[in-house]
Amino acid sequence: AMDGAPPLPSPAGLSAYVAVSQLLGLTLLATTGAWLGHYRGGVAWHSPLQFNAHPLCMVLAMVFLQGDALLVYRVFRHETKRSTKALHALLHGLALVIALVGIIAVFKSHRTKGIPDMYSLHSWCGMATFVLYLLQWFLGCGFFLFPGASFSLRGWYKPQHIFFGITLFILSITSCLLGITEMLLFKISDSYSHFVPEGILANTLGVLLVAFGLVVGYVLTREEWKRPPLAEELALSMDFKTLTEGESPGG
Amino acid sequence: AMDGAPPLPSPAGLSAYVAVSQLLGLTLLATTGAWLGHYRGGVAWHSPLQFNAHPLCMVLAMVFLQGDALLVYRVFRHETKRSTKALHALLHGLALVIALVGIIAVFKSHRTKGIPDMYSLHSWCGMATFVLYLLQWFLGCGFFLFPGASFSLRGWYKPQHIFFGITLFILSITSCLLGITEMLLFKISDSYSHFVPEGILANTLGVLLVAFGLVVGYVLTREEWKRPPLAEELALSMDFKTLTEGESPGG
Repeated sequence: AMDGAPPLPSPAGLSAYVAVSQLLGLTLLATTGAWLGHYRGGVAWHSPLQFNAHPLCMVLAMVFLQGDALLVYRVFRHETKRSTKALHALLHGLALVIALVGIIAVFKSHRTKGIPDMYSLHSWCGMATFVLYLLQWFLGCGFFLFPGASFSLRGWYKPQHIFFGITLFILSITSCLLGITEMLLFKISDSYSHFVPEGILANTLGVLLVAFGLVVGYVLTREEWKRPPLAEELALSMDFKTLTEGESPGG
Repeated sequence: AMDGAPPLPSPAGLSAYVAVSQLLGLTLLATTGAWLGHYRGGVAWHSPLQFNAHPLCMVLAMVFLQGDALLVYRVFRHETKRSTKALHALLHGLALVIALVGIIAVFKSHRTKGIPDMYSLHSWCGMATFVLYLLQWFLGCGFFLFPGASFSLRGWYKPQHIFFGITLFILSITSCLLGITEMLLFKISDSYSHFVPEGILANTLGVLLVAFGLVVGYVLTREEWKRPPLAEELALSMDFKTLTEGESPGG
């Protein structure tokens, strides 16, 4: 499939899907804000509302910003690889900082209220996701952003980086859904089964999170929408071909 | 990448990963059984234990059988495409029947206990996943198993089928994790935060479900492990190339 054709403008379908993803992303942030603001008293740091900073930060960082960081290679198709990489790393770095604030919020809130930490499936999944996300960020910077790693080493790591990157994005969304379920069963366990508005709003937030992940995942995995390889990548791919022995990858 | 090389024996790495996936699959079934048997009184249909058929059926069908159905194209690399397809459809069909039993179990159990249906995020995600899984099965049979669909129609639908197939597998695992969280907060909300063995066992089941999904997902998406295309598929791919205009898909 390496026909050496010059890169063309972004396919129209791609732009539409990216637009839908951003609309979904903003809608899910607004829905999170509406839930916390309208039903949970709002967000404040030095107060009993400190806990509410947790869902807000995690949805903003681990879903919206992480998702957008994954999309940069599809959106910026003609910028240099280096500046697109830097933006990718920057957005993930921003997500890591905001997520850390969100994690501090829940630990501090637990301390204040005398609630134990790290006992629930949500906390196990969420913490594992955050720690692996931090590790992936360091590995990504080490392999791709700083000089030193050889072409063949980068070529070996790249598919792993992509697979685990998408996996961590999915795990982030899953952790959010677990958090929504926990929060609803802690706060409105008596009325949740009566279809109260707060329950329906929070369930809708869950559906929006899944929809955002679905659209971002579709854009990322669609073969025709991948960023066309640059000359250096083609050279790498040739180099790599001599390392793999006699396998015939599918179309 | 179409070098026309004859198909080689399964790569060693693939076999190891598939073996690990099956070990994880059996472990997660055993863990589900241990949880329900040891802490939840076991499983029985015409009894207050009817609910317990729900998690057992859903984990068996929507995770283990669905995951194995996705793996058949990687495991059976030299059998005819037609028989591999038939096995793929059969395993998904079996999963659908067992999942339906699991869904009937929870609706009947709710009726007996006077609990409303379909109010929780778990029920929304789970039901959407099941309905779309059924739809995907019918579409898959219609496009690929029965004659009638043209090569170009199949070529258009195939990437959609693969994307939504993996998505539904991920959503199934996510729905299971939501169900585990719900069940723990319904049954042991007072002791869950004290790290009681049941909580740790059920959390571990959640981690095993994620690990199974991770290994299956890795096997499915690794480029070198894809089933080598047959002559007819190469012809189709050529045919399809003339339909797409001037895009240069990445390596």
